[in-house]
Amino acid sequence: MNTITSRGWALANRPVGAPKASDFSLKTSEAPAPKEGEIQVRNSWMSVDPYMRGRMYDRESYVPPFQIGELLQGGAIGRVTASAHPDFKIGDLVQSMAGWREAWTAHPDAVLASARPGDTGLPESAFLGIAGMPGLTAYAGILRVAELKQGDTVLVSGAAGAVGSAVVQIAKIKGCTVIGSAGGPDKVAFVKSLGADACIDYHEASSYEGLLSALRAAAPKGIDVYFDNVGGDHFQAAIELARPMARMAICGMISQYNDTEPRPGPNNVIQIVGKQLQIRGFIVSTHADMQNDFMADMAQWIASGALKFQETVMDGIEAAPAAFMGLFSGQNKGKMLVKLS
Amino acid sequence: MNTITSRGWALANRPVGAPKASDFSLKTSEAPAPKEGEIQVRNSWMSVDPYMRGRMYDRESYVPPFQIGELLQGGAIGRVTASAHPDFKIGDLVQSMAGWREAWTAHPDAVLASARPGDTGLPESAFLGIAGMPGLTAYAGILRVAELKQGDTVLVSGAAGAVGSAVVQIAKIKGCTVIGSAGGPDKVAFVKSLGADACIDYHEASSYEGLLSALRAAAPKGIDVYFDNVGGDHFQAAIELARPMARMAICGMISQYNDTEPRPGPNNVIQIVGKQLQIRGFIVSTHADMQNDFMADMAQWIASGALKFQETVMDGIEAAPAAFMGLFSGQNKGKMLVKLS
Repeated sequence: MNTITSRGWALANRPVGAPKASDFSLKTSEAPAPKEGEIQVRNSWMSVDPYMRGRMYDRESYVPPFQIGELLQGGAIGRVTASAHPDFKIGDLVQSMAGWREAWTAHPDAVLASARPGDTGLPESAFLGIAGMPGLTAYAGILRVAELKQGDTVLVSGAAGAVGSAVVQIAKIKGCTVIGSAGGPDKVAFVKSLGADACIDYHEASSYEGLLSALRAAAPKGIDVYFDNVGGDHFQAAIELARPMARMAICGMISQYNDTEPRPGPNNVIQIVGKQLQIRGFIVSTHADMQNDFMADMAQWIASGALKFQETVMDGIEAAPAAFMGLFSGQNKGKMLVKLS
Repeated sequence: MNTITSRGWALANRPVGAPKASDFSLKTSEAPAPKEGEIQVRNSWMSVDPYMRGRMYDRESYVPPFQIGELLQGGAIGRVTASAHPDFKIGDLVQSMAGWREAWTAHPDAVLASARPGDTGLPESAFLGIAGMPGLTAYAGILRVAELKQGDTVLVSGAAGAVGSAVVQIAKIKGCTVIGSAGGPDKVAFVKSLGADACIDYHEASSYEGLLSALRAAAPKGIDVYFDNVGGDHFQAAIELARPMARMAICGMISQYNDTEPRPGPNNVIQIVGKQLQIRGFIVSTHADMQNDFMADMAQWIASGALKFQETVMDGIEAAPAAFMGLFSGQNKGKMLVKLS
């Protein structure tokens, strides 16, 4: 049992506005041989996700803030390299929250995800995406939070992202009309390749009016469901296009995560009353009880080809901040990942 | 069977901003003797309600817009003065949407509310307030839309109004802590007399920060439920004070009904995600299925003294526009009514 030298990223500064390279610092430490009850793991993949931006603020939230000078955390998947725990042997695949580093040694209870990756035939990286947190986010959000019904017209913002691309496909599987919004022709083509009935390129809209007009052309009869990954103008446009009794699952508002000042909200909230809208924010962990249904459905949908997944991969621990920053400039199609070994 | 001369109010102009006297015109017409199947009714009371402002805009909504030059409509209660319908006899109490006028002749199907006032021992006017549409709005909104649970801390804006004052009391009956917001010391005292644990005077707050600070002092641990009658700053403050999983029933936004320009929405909608808020607009007619439960509970609560109701009465058909305009300057405690005969 050997010590592994592990590089990992700490938070150097709390970002102001968009995160920049100098907000991160690369540290070298050691993952020692495991003590009684511990395991030593070399990460194969780590995840970068938009929600991590929230943990970089020093404020109370549903997850505690990252601390300056300490290693960042996030989803990772890897293989056991040494074990002093009876339930783990060398080579076991483990999913943890000990991302942003190459290797680690810890008691499994402290860092492992609640579910261990099963024998699904999926590639390891899928457990950080379609078969992991983003996939369950899409599944719980569209089916339970938005109360999707067959025949609904569904608008998905951030439709080319890890969550959005899964939402688009689940809604199609469930017999809905799906309108996506994504940035740039390449992503629009990707969203359409997933089966979306239409997808607008929000980069082409230079104003709120332009965005609304493009969305209205794509959904001339309005929408029954909105799945929000983006916030801002998209949220306002969704309220405008909502039919009576429309339901909105608010998953994220990536367009607002780097705001340095409070941003005025949608100027049409009064429509919430007359249209009897239901707007619900959610966090995936609240819906952990759906994990088994989720994995069963995903396995079937992926095996049948009904559900596809895409990954955007950056290579090596050095690339982790760039991968994270890339989320905010829309550099990913599907799940953004960093390959570590 | 005689013709009754009836004065009634027509919409003279679509109001721009706050309604003013010149937006209304008093017309004299006749309620003729009823033809086969019709009844002739002299209204005893008519209702003015904030939602009527929405019908003065020329736009699609859940109820059609009022037409310029035609009599306004709204809740009314009156007595049959002549009947050519087998189910109605002279002296019967009937509740209709033929308000804003002294008398009318029509087929009951065209104008009557779905439920006929029962033999409840309540005064007639109660069917336009606590035992009518505003009461059911409060009942359905707080119990079903907001999913009230015992022990919740509930914030009610417009707490001295017809709906708000009922919400305050229903939430107290259900074992909740209730914080009201109302304008002026007289209304604050009224809301407290209904059992509210605290009530802030929003007239004392000269800014959003002042309002938030007053509400925070009244609900230092935050709120589980928000019942919105007001919109604007109150809605934003409620999002700020919301605990995780808080539920909001959006009944109305009277502070915004006279807006001539779109108003920026709450600047903290991003909290919908992290706090997993549920925000639901609603219209009372969607919850008509609760009518029987509502009347049974109301009768019991009123009889036991657990629920009180207050009315602000203006006298005579001439006063109807002033009564309506008074809603927007907060001249009512409880239900605003016009006594017609």
